[in-house]
Amino acid sequence: MNREIYLKRIEKLIGGLEEMGLRGIVVTGSSNLLYFTGTDAASLALIWDGGGPLLITSRLEYVRALEEARIGEVVAYCEVEAATAPYEKVVKGDLYSVLRREVERVGLEPSKLGVTLSSLSYESYSRLTKALGISPKDATQLVKDLRAVKCREEVSLIEKAARIAEEALRKALNHLEKGVRECDVAALLASEIRRRGALPAFEPIVAFGEHSAHPHAKVGSRKLREGELVKIDVGARVEGYCSDITRVTVVGRASKEQRRMLEAVLRAQEVAVAVIEDGAKACQVDEKAREILKGEGFLEYFTHSLGHGLGLDVHEAPILSPTSKDVLRRGMVVTVEPGVYVRGLGGVRVEDDVLVCEEGARIITKFERELL
Amino acid sequence: MNREIYLKRIEKLIGGLEEMGLRGIVVTGSSNLLYFTGTDAASLALIWDGGGPLLITSRLEYVRALEEARIGEVVAYCEVEAATAPYEKVVKGDLYSVLRREVERVGLEPSKLGVTLSSLSYESYSRLTKALGISPKDATQLVKDLRAVKCREEVSLIEKAARIAEEALRKALNHLEKGVRECDVAALLASEIRRRGALPAFEPIVAFGEHSAHPHAKVGSRKLREGELVKIDVGARVEGYCSDITRVTVVGRASKEQRRMLEAVLRAQEVAVAVIEDGAKACQVDEKAREILKGEGFLEYFTHSLGHGLGLDVHEAPILSPTSKDVLRRGMVVTVEPGVYVRGLGGVRVEDDVLVCEEGARIITKFERELL
Repeated sequence: MNREIYLKRIEKLIGGLEEMGLRGIVVTGSSNLLYFTGTDAASLALIWDGGGPLLITSRLEYVRALEEARIGEVVAYCEVEAATAPYEKVVKGDLYSVLRREVERVGLEPSKLGVTLSSLSYESYSRLTKALGISPKDATQLVKDLRAVKCREEVSLIEKAARIAEEALRKALNHLEKGVRECDVAALLASEIRRRGALPAFEPIVAFGEHSAHPHAKVGSRKLREGELVKIDVGARVEGYCSDITRVTVVGRASKEQRRMLEAVLRAQEVAVAVIEDGAKACQVDEKAREILKGEGFLEYFTHSLGHGLGLDVHEAPILSPTSKDVLRRGMVVTVEPGVYVRGLGGVRVEDDVLVCEEGARIITKFERELL
Repeated sequence: MNREIYLKRIEKLIGGLEEMGLRGIVVTGSSNLLYFTGTDAASLALIWDGGGPLLITSRLEYVRALEEARIGEVVAYCEVEAATAPYEKVVKGDLYSVLRREVERVGLEPSKLGVTLSSLSYESYSRLTKALGISPKDATQLVKDLRAVKCREEVSLIEKAARIAEEALRKALNHLEKGVRECDVAALLASEIRRRGALPAFEPIVAFGEHSAHPHAKVGSRKLREGELVKIDVGARVEGYCSDITRVTVVGRASKEQRRMLEAVLRAQEVAVAVIEDGAKACQVDEKAREILKGEGFLEYFTHSLGHGLGLDVHEAPILSPTSKDVLRRGMVVTVEPGVYVRGLGGVRVEDDVLVCEEGARIITKFERELL
């Protein structure tokens, strides 16, 4: 992504901070760092109304940060007095004491700093608080909101990631036959993704038979039998951006009950997607899918949320769930993934990636859904 | 792993808590949960002197937790009133309100509870604190110490993971030739690991030429040229337990400088491993390696710690670094991985997994080290 995009993101960020009465922010968490600087090699980035980003890294990640960052300056911290290479810019101290010094150097008042607290471990939070001498204000929501709405370039990367996941899925489906193991199929999926220059966005899920009743099944060495459900959930990551798709199939003849499960799930998905548009309430989209599953007698077997935002994280804002307060906005990309999971029998989920439009929605994933 | 091992771990845990004046613990973090219960499907586990573990999960992970847990009981939380399947045990509330209710139900005083705080995000910490009405005591160190010393069964799983990583590495080395891309080699490594029923312990690192100067290089589509350094860092995970091995090679003739780098690193590793034994100070092992690299004029290019503990996490206690306060104990498994990274030229690292013994050390990884 070009430098202009990062400049624009930071401009919006500073604008949002000003509205909160803040002058700057400490950005933490790899996807947040990627979003504002182009690299996740830094431990944190300091961005303020007068400059930045200043990326602070461990020495281990210094060269990568230097080469990957699309914007800003990089400095490494080192807790001991150490011999350093001529091209390294190293400051003595731990991460947070170096941050404090930089905050002072550029003349920022710690009380005027926000922090992406939800991307911080409790341990890091304690050290940060101690170093800055205050409990910093939480700027998580601001960053979440900015990231949730995608620009054209981001949508295009998610589309690319969707194509790659679909190509891998096609290969995997062609590879299914009696006796193949879950781990063989997962190996193929991940390998096809990597060979296309992408990364698996998450550990692919391949679950056969009863095992598919675990929504997040862990791949094992179970062998495929004829007539069993096969659930595959796979995603690719292209320049950080993720896709996420789930399909179910059966090798051989599907049973009536399997078909009934799939039909209910497909109908639930269709009805939910139909109400997605700018301004729709996320909880109401979720509710639409649940209504259909209720009508089919499967409601108690749908044990998770309907979907989640998709971007530099596989799970990000907004969330489509019964308790969600999110409102969908044009440019958001979300998954829509109703499922029915019956212990001892198996699970069916169909998941697609959807772009929220001014009116209606555009489905990014193109793979056929009826595979029974 | 059999149930006896989990019972023994919990017995030791309760003993440690008693020494801290505590009666119970809230265990968080997937590897901690795996360690004490056999599953990482739970969100947290409550363990106390009168019982447990009580595993609290989201509904999404309920069936997996139920089937994977080697010990304890499972209950799911759900924030809304929901229709549930007949086999589900669901309590209404969010994770932490359900925890509080269970703590009350079994008659535990919140002030007598420890928590593995370092495996908690700041957000979860805030919610937990609010629900329990106190700032809980940190039991991270106790759990770290227990996990750091491995029993025979754990060492045997790490050995198995080492064999698998080595087999994958062998295939990858055989696949190296002019024009191959980093991502092709990474695809092969991960695929060979999965086909052996294991998982990649982390994203394999495959870096060619100057790119190998990033200690944690991200795999790209760079093509291999003759005479360039190839750095491969790969690990497998077997029943949760990780291996971690790094080798460097060159396709074609290695340069004098490349050989000099490798020789320095090999010598640093050898000297460091030679001082590992029960009672050795981790910082002194690190220091030994640094002395050798200093003598060879490479000290400023060794930009990270010498090694880390290995187990259910790829990085766990103890740490071998200049500032480490850890003392090595019989049964610990650590990596020893000196490196030399020169921007614009490339990087050399050799990494092996080592079991700390009563006297001396046993190297778990068997792969030959001189590949130039």
